[in-house]
Order: sequence, then structure tokens, then C-alpha cells
Amino acid sequence: MKVLVINAGSSSIKYQLIDMEGETLLAKGLVERIAGGNSMLTHKAHGKAFEIKEDIPSHASGLKLVLNALTDSEMGVISSLDEISAIGHRILHGGGKYNKATLVTSDVMKDLTSYIPLGPLHMPANIQGIEACMEVMPSTVNVCVFDTGFHATMPDYAYMYATPYSWCEKYGVRKYGFHGTSHEYIAHEVAKELNRDVSELKIISCHLGNGASVCAIKNGKCVDTSMGFTPLEGLVMGTRCGDIDPAVMEYVMDRTGMDIHEMLNVLNKKSGLLGISERSNDMRDVLSLAYEGDAKCKLAVQKFIYAVKKYIGAYSAVLGGVDAIAFSAGTGENRADIRENIMEGLDYLGVDFDKDRNSSFERGINYRISKEDSKVAVYVIPTDEELSIARQTKAVVEG
Amino acid sequence: MKVLVINAGSSSIKYQLIDMEGETLLAKGLVERIAGGNSMLTHKAHGKAFEIKEDIPSHASGLKLVLNALTDSEMGVISSLDEISAIGHRILHGGGKYNKATLVTSDVMKDLTSYIPLGPLHMPANIQGIEACMEVMPSTVNVCVFDTGFHATMPDYAYMYATPYSWCEKYGVRKYGFHGTSHEYIAHEVAKELNRDVSELKIISCHLGNGASVCAIKNGKCVDTSMGFTPLEGLVMGTRCGDIDPAVMEYVMDRTGMDIHEMLNVLNKKSGLLGISERSNDMRDVLSLAYEGDAKCKLAVQKFIYAVKKYIGAYSAVLGGVDAIAFSAGTGENRADIRENIMEGLDYLGVDFDKDRNSSFERGINYRISKEDSKVAVYVIPTDEELSIARQTKAVVEG
Repeated sequence: MKVLVINAGSSSIKYQLIDMEGETLLAKGLVERIAGGNSMLTHKAHGKAFEIKEDIPSHASGLKLVLNALTDSEMGVISSLDEISAIGHRILHGGGKYNKATLVTSDVMKDLTSYIPLGPLHMPANIQGIEACMEVMPSTVNVCVFDTGFHATMPDYAYMYATPYSWCEKYGVRKYGFHGTSHEYIAHEVAKELNRDVSELKIISCHLGNGASVCAIKNGKCVDTSMGFTPLEGLVMGTRCGDIDPAVMEYVMDRTGMDIHEMLNVLNKKSGLLGISERSNDMRDVLSLAYEGDAKCKLAVQKFIYAVKKYIGAYSAVLGGVDAIAFSAGTGENRADIRENIMEGLDYLGVDFDKDRNSSFERGINYRISKEDSKVAVYVIPTDEELSIARQTKAVVEG
Repeated sequence: MKVLVINAGSSSIKYQLIDMEGETLLAKGLVERIAGGNSMLTHKAHGKAFEIKEDIPSHASGLKLVLNALTDSEMGVISSLDEISAIGHRILHGGGKYNKATLVTSDVMKDLTSYIPLGPLHMPANIQGIEACMEVMPSTVNVCVFDTGFHATMPDYAYMYATPYSWCEKYGVRKYGFHGTSHEYIAHEVAKELNRDVSELKIISCHLGNGASVCAIKNGKCVDTSMGFTPLEGLVMGTRCGDIDPAVMEYVMDRTGMDIHEMLNVLNKKSGLLGISERSNDMRDVLSLAYEGDAKCKLAVQKFIYAVKKYIGAYSAVLGGVDAIAFSAGTGENRADIRENIMEGLDYLGVDFDKDRNSSFERGINYRISKEDSKVAVYVIPTDEELSIARQTKAVVEG
């Protein structure tokens, strides 16, 4: 079975075609600047990259270009579109309702439309991606895989805020969590590494990229996660502030004349590593500058490490102890120094961290960085959201 | 040595006169509705309560009334004001500068005035309290004991927010923490109970009242605390929301037309236990209703418990394990059911909780509620902020 994975943004489509026999990546690529100037498709297959520059006025026309490339005699990897058994769509928001990958029906499309206020930047594009597929490949099955889906199992006392109850009822104000596909994938990879069933494990998954979140996973199900109503809450991120005292906003707005939208723009786009360091939102740059002695960059890195450490501690309490901790995404997969600092002082949890393995880890594979007999296993798990979407899509199609 | 402890609010003065020989409470009372109608003094001494109703136009006139009562032939407990060696003032804000009790000088008064924006409700009253004492007892020493003081030892990566660095420099935006006097007192009581020096202990102190905060204390010094720039951040409280996604505020403001001041008013005064339960801000009421089957009250209680549990977990990671956990203030001292639920599942920390001792605890005294050989000791510690202020005042006076 071959599955096409689609991640549609407001002016882009990312895609991968995966052969589920052996989980082989056949082709992948990116349509950029849809309905804008200089639109183009970059298609990668057979170890080569192809660039097709042409006018792409809509998601549907972009998708047609992708399908042409996939079946092209030179760039192509399949001889007919009939070989694509299903299309898996990455969808931002399942509104707290969808906790599993779901076949697209007209009822589902109605629900997705109702979630637009919860994801005004992503949801319209996600919907356009599905509509384009229905238009261009009308007989192929579409499946939604929700970024919030894995978190829909959180108990109410974890997802409710202590704000007026009516805000949840009227406006849907609650914690939803994001990065769900990644955390679910990581949990299953950890279980595989441990030769145990995910349903008997307590796992803390740390997805540490430019966006970053921690997830507490008990018996394969999410019980809490650090992102909230939006991806702003939780850890310190590239440009997002994470947890703050809400009263800070009023205080600064009173003194600067910012309105609430300008304030949220600062908290989302000019805070985090960038806000503290005043140099960069990119952990690699901030770390380099910190090693060169830049005090604010050092503080930004320490604050990031401290935030992750606190969430690992909090989720250990939530889970009643932990069997495994996993690091993934850009910083999590590649920065041994950050991982070492996060794990420092966590021996009380039963972690016997292996500094040598951590610093000499092999990139791109699941890699244990705790000692073999550590009570708590610690792993680097390269996350693969597209493969996870393809797996879930296959599972839905096979019933 | 006798120390007068003053806690001046905007229209009130709470006071205690304590004989530091044996730490005996000689008298205490409350001046209410200063500069309003029906102003009065309630004075308690010799096991009796005295009510004096008269016009009290200012803090100074209220203080004169207190001093008259203290030296009165019937209500009094001292024969002359000269017996009062020093006055200790509870001051809300030390602005991140004052980490210890401090003798009042004109420089200190200037600093206090500069902190008014950080505590617009409390600081003017605190200052008026000192000024009244200087006016009425010009030859007596005044000492400031700051509610933020104990937290001034937090490292920068704990107190900084990941918001623009300039906000800290220009506006003083950072975590300050509150309840410091209480947490410091609790830490010392725990050390006393354990017959160990506070400088060798890792303690998590849970001050759980209508306002509530958790504090991580390493070697006698605060390293982190759950309240932040203001007392809004952190745990779920009677009417305060504690930690939320900052993006919730924009979303609800856009849909209700609330401005930022109305929003903060809701987050401070209509959220927390009251917001979720829609019934009461008082844990006793909310718990009663929860036991009667009220679903929202049950959720409010669970959310409160969950928030405390997460902070205990987070601060265990911050401290690198924990030697003792202490509960204090209204809910912490009196609700065995809440304590039991918070401690559930924390065995992984080394807690061997004693449910029987917990449920049959004796009120008003330091009381161990973990088993005798528990690796982590758990205590109920009735907090006594006034005694702590008096002790710190004495220490400053004695140099």
C-alpha cells in the first residue's frame, strides 16, 4: 500500500509518498508560494531534486503538479495514481473531539470548518488541502491526522484552565496540546526499543525544536502536555515565551500602549530564546554565542534547559514515576550539551545517565543515552511525523 | 525584647505584640475601615476581646489607638511604650533588591516608594504604616520584612521570563514570588523537626490558603516559587487562575469586548476555585459541594490538587530530589483529604505517606504525616508569619 502524506499550509503543500511495505520513502517535496509570485515545486526522488517553476494559482493546481511529478517518466515513482491507496492529511486541530485519525466525510469537513477560529492560520489551509485532493483525485480516500489528536485523552483536570467555566463551554477555552503525531510516534518507538508494550509504560516525550513541547504518556495515552489552548504555553521556544504570569501583559500594555494583539504578537514572535538573547531564535546560534561568553545568550539557554527540567519533574509526578524519557526534534536530537544539562540532577528519578553515549551518539537512529541498567531509560528518538501520519492513515483505511 | 508587628493594608492595620523571651504573644488586634464609616479597633489581650468604635481618619490615628490599648490599665499588656524595642513591618515588595529584613532609613523609604507600581494596592498602605509609626513613636526602630524577600535568592534563569529582555530592565518584569515570610518560617520549622540544619536540606513548602504558592528551598535559600511577577501566577487559588496560556486572554477579549483591565480583574477575582466551581472561592464550601456530588466543584478540587502535585514534581527536579515536603495555611493545615490526594503517587520520590497519621493529625502544632522511616519527611506546619516577622526584626535590631 502506498500512502500520500499532505501537509498543507496557507501558501504551501509539503508531501511525501511512502510505500508502507517496508515503510520506504519513495518521493517527497514542497510546493511553495501558491497564489503568489515565483511559485514553484521542488520534488525529490531517485536521489535527485527537481525544480519546476510555474504559475500555481491554487492548492488544487499545486497538487496536480505534484501528481504529475509522481507519475512522470523521469521524476516519477509510480506509473499511475491508482497506486496511491490513501491520502493522509496533517490537520492542526481536532477541537478536543477527534482523538484518532479519521476518514474524511462531509460531517468531518463541517467540524473542521468550525475549528477555524481555534487555528485561523492553519485550518483554512488544511481544509483547502483536503478539498484539492477531493477535486483532483475524487476516488481516493482522505484521512485526517490531527496534531491535537493524541492529546484528546487528557483528563479534564489536566485540560481545564481555572478560568470561568463558561469560557470552556462558550468559546472552547481549554488545553488542546500540539505535536501530538510526534509524541505518539516517539512513545511507540520507545516501547519498541524497550521490547515492551506501550500500554504498560510511563513515558515523558520531549519534542524540542523551534516549537517545543513535553508530553506525559501513560499506557500509550497522553495524560498531559505543555502546550495549551495554543502552541504559546509551556516551554521556552524559539520566539514563544511559554509560561508567564498573565499579569505581565497588563503591566507592559499599560506602559507601552500596546494593544492585546500587539502583545500576543510579541509573546509569539519576539520572545523565547530571541526575546532573552536579543540575538537569535535559533538554538544553534544562541548556543554558539553563549559559548563565546554572551551573557544573555547563556541565560536564554539556561532558561530553556530549566523549563524542560521542570516539566520532566512535573510529569514524573503526574505519572507517578517514569520508565523512559525521550528527546526528539532539532535541539532534542542534535544537542548533546542541552540533553546533558537537562538530565543533570535527575538521578532521584532513577536516571543513570550515560554522558559518554550521550556525547558520542549516532544521528538519525533511535539511540539510548542512559546506562544499560538505568531504572529510567533515556533515548534520542528522531521523530518522523510523516511516517506516523502514513501509518495512521493505513490503519484507518484497513479498518 | 518586645516586638510590635504591623501589617498595614489600605484601610486596616493588623498588629501583634510579641515578647521574644519565650516568643509569647501578648496582644493582637485589628484596626478596620480607616478613613471610612464605622471604623473600629478590635484588641485581644488577657484572653478577652475589646471593641473600640470611634472615628479613625488616618493610619497614624489608628496606630495611636493601638498604642493606647497596649498601655491601657485594663486592656494593656505593657506599662510604657518604651518597652517596645522595635517595630517589624510586613512589606509586600522588595523589588528583587531586598532579600533580608532591613532597618528603615530614608534610602529604604525611597526604594519602597519606587516599588509602588509593582504593588499599587499594598505598597502605599505599607508605607503609610511605617510613616505612622515614625510619627507616633519617633524614637523606636522600624524594620521592613518583605513578602518577596525570601525569594530574592532565586537564580536569574528561575526569575526571568522568556519575554523581551528589555521588559525586565525597563519595567522590572520578572518573577518576584510572595508568601516569602511564611515559606522561610516553614523551612526553619521543618529543619527543627528533623533536628538538622536548614542549610543542608532540600525542602518543598506548600502554603495552601485562599492565596497559595509552592516554594523550592535548597540549603535554606529559595531557588524557585510558583507565584510570579504578581500573586496571580502558579497554583489554582480561591479566585486566581494560576498558570494559563496567555493566548486565552486575547481569544476571550476578542469575543467578549473585555479590555485588559477587565480581563485581569476576572483572572484575579472570578477565576480559580470560584471560576471552575461557579459556587465558591472557599475550599471548605467547594469540597462540601464536591462530596455532595457537584461535578464542577469536584473538578475545581481535582484541578487544585493536580496543580500542587505538578509543582511538587517540578521542584523536586529543580532541587535534584527532596528531603521534606511541608503543608501550611488554611487548606494545607486543615484538610487531610486534600493532602492525601496531593501525595498520592509520589512514592517514586521516596515518600512513605502515613494516611492514618494524616487523617488523625493534631491541629495547631508541627505534625509529621509521613511514616517515621520515610526517605522524604512530610509535615503539616502551622505557619506563623507574625512570629517570623518578629524574629527577623529582632535579628536586625541585634545586628
